[in-house]
Amino acid sequence: VTGEAALPQDRVAALAAGVIAGDRLALARAITLAESGLDADRAAAEALLERLLPRTGGAIRLGISGPPGVGKSTFIETLGLHLVAQGRRVAVLAVDPSSKISGGAILGDKTRMGGLALAEQAFIRPSPAGGAAGGVAPRTREAILLCEAAGYDVVIVETVGVGQSESAVADMVDLLVLLIQPAGGDELQGMKRGILELADLVLVNKADGALADAARRTLADYRHALRLLAPAGAGGGPLVEACSALTGAGVAEAWTALAARHAALAEGGGLAARRQAQARRWLRSELELGLLAALAADPAVAAGLKDCQSRILAGNMTPPAAARRLLAAFLKRARAPADGPPS
Amino acid sequence: VTGEAALPQDRVAALAAGVIAGDRLALARAITLAESGLDADRAAAEALLERLLPRTGGAIRLGISGPPGVGKSTFIETLGLHLVAQGRRVAVLAVDPSSKISGGAILGDKTRMGGLALAEQAFIRPSPAGGAAGGVAPRTREAILLCEAAGYDVVIVETVGVGQSESAVADMVDLLVLLIQPAGGDELQGMKRGILELADLVLVNKADGALADAARRTLADYRHALRLLAPAGAGGGPLVEACSALTGAGVAEAWTALAARHAALAEGGGLAARRQAQARRWLRSELELGLLAALAADPAVAAGLKDCQSRILAGNMTPPAAARRLLAAFLKRARAPADGPPS
Repeated sequence: VTGEAALPQDRVAALAAGVIAGDRLALARAITLAESGLDADRAAAEALLERLLPRTGGAIRLGISGPPGVGKSTFIETLGLHLVAQGRRVAVLAVDPSSKISGGAILGDKTRMGGLALAEQAFIRPSPAGGAAGGVAPRTREAILLCEAAGYDVVIVETVGVGQSESAVADMVDLLVLLIQPAGGDELQGMKRGILELADLVLVNKADGALADAARRTLADYRHALRLLAPAGAGGGPLVEACSALTGAGVAEAWTALAARHAALAEGGGLAARRQAQARRWLRSELELGLLAALAADPAVAAGLKDCQSRILAGNMTPPAAARRLLAAFLKRARAPADGPPS
Repeated sequence: VTGEAALPQDRVAALAAGVIAGDRLALARAITLAESGLDADRAAAEALLERLLPRTGGAIRLGISGPPGVGKSTFIETLGLHLVAQGRRVAVLAVDPSSKISGGAILGDKTRMGGLALAEQAFIRPSPAGGAAGGVAPRTREAILLCEAAGYDVVIVETVGVGQSESAVADMVDLLVLLIQPAGGDELQGMKRGILELADLVLVNKADGALADAARRTLADYRHALRLLAPAGAGGGPLVEACSALTGAGVAEAWTALAARHAALAEGGGLAARRQAQARRWLRSELELGLLAALAADPAVAAGLKDCQSRILAGNMTPPAAARRLLAAFLKRARAPADGPPS
């Protein structure tokens, strides 16, 4: 395969050494390699990850989500600088499962985290401008592993909360923080209920200045609502706190709570179980995506798929009948040795 | 195919005629055929459904979920008799996606709905005792279609609320009702927050006798909590009402609210959109299940899958690398011999 010629074993080894040494340029190159859509790069990325795997798993993996304008980057900057001051090494990754959002919405501009970007113990990775659908999230999982191999002990994955993105991120991190806006009374909205279930910490940001009172009310309202809706015996649901990313008030306390929750999770075995379940779902999702892609890449089957879809939507065919027909066609072609590769 | 010999076209035609005529025995046989795991039966079931498809889609598809003991069967009995008295024809199906629950937990005993079972305009279908994992839900979708072809204009799908079952049912009905228990203050629990998002109506049952006050408080608490958490501009989330399935108080009102919501959904085009999205997910899920089954049925690939899984859990392999290896092995036979996987 040409890919291994383009990036031979010794270049993979050199890149691995750079990552392990904590070279930020090597780490950036490694992530670019993992994000590449080229088959040759994929093989190299996997060879690289295989080398680095023994050095992964050591970080606190933290997801940060919230609606646009809630102050995610300010919060990450404040939290990141707090962690760096504690002697920690912090990596920030952006994931944007919905390519409909403009690239500038998350981390498009490093100056949004100007202070953290200057810190030597920090690594900030802007999101690629709109990756392949379904492709960004799996590669972000690999980017997390690469950051861990590079010695970062807190890896923050930032995502704009737009519905499905939160659950994608929740499935690749240890703890999820949801940032919300202060709001008055009945205006307390903007977060889908299902998302709350994913959160470990709900954090009312902007608890400062003119919004301090509103933040206090929002905090009380969410605490009340979440207490009422907490599932019985499930660890009590998410914590609810307030902070000001701008003044820094409450940010250190939020971190302390998160670190304590992470430590409890690790001691109780829950962390290992969660990560293993994530790995299982990751494998299943890679297999499903790969199989569906292979099916759609077969020109004859792809034409049948289109036809079946319109017949289903017109009410002339059931999905099981369509699936049976498509699978039979696909497997027959895949199994027939005389059939040659479809071009 | 021997299956078409075992159940030839004319027998399929006769069964279809029986279903269309509203013969309950024919409908029961048709559902049994759809639930069968035999390839021959599958082909016959698909031929049957293809004939009946033009007659489907006319019912209000209603999901009823809730924890064990909340009174689901009493509620369905009361609601069903109310609908029958209105001249409607009501079919009740049970779905039990988790085969861990004993078959008796849902509809194992028809006498639980003794009155409704006697009504000529009703059809009650007990769940099969533990179907194949992932297999019950898709076949329940087919059972809904069969009931519609038989002229039932309300199809109720009952499920025990045990986490994932609600979302499986929500993906095959038009409206989902969650029944909950009256409870006092902080005991107001037992429903996972994410489930609430799926509901169109949250109904506090047992609002009678000694529990009447508790039901009133629970109603107020849920209304408050859901109002606080309602997503902005998303139609206001679920309705929250109370009823007594035992005395019948509130059941007719609950139905009126559901029917009004269904009519609004149908008029606004939301119903068609919802059903089309369900059909798309149904096809995708059938394809994924079929492809994964085909992959696992290949002995060499299945052995590789087992090996990859343990290597992933041991931290020696990433899921993308495992998926690439397994897919290459699975597709190798027809896809170019030159295209082999890097080893």
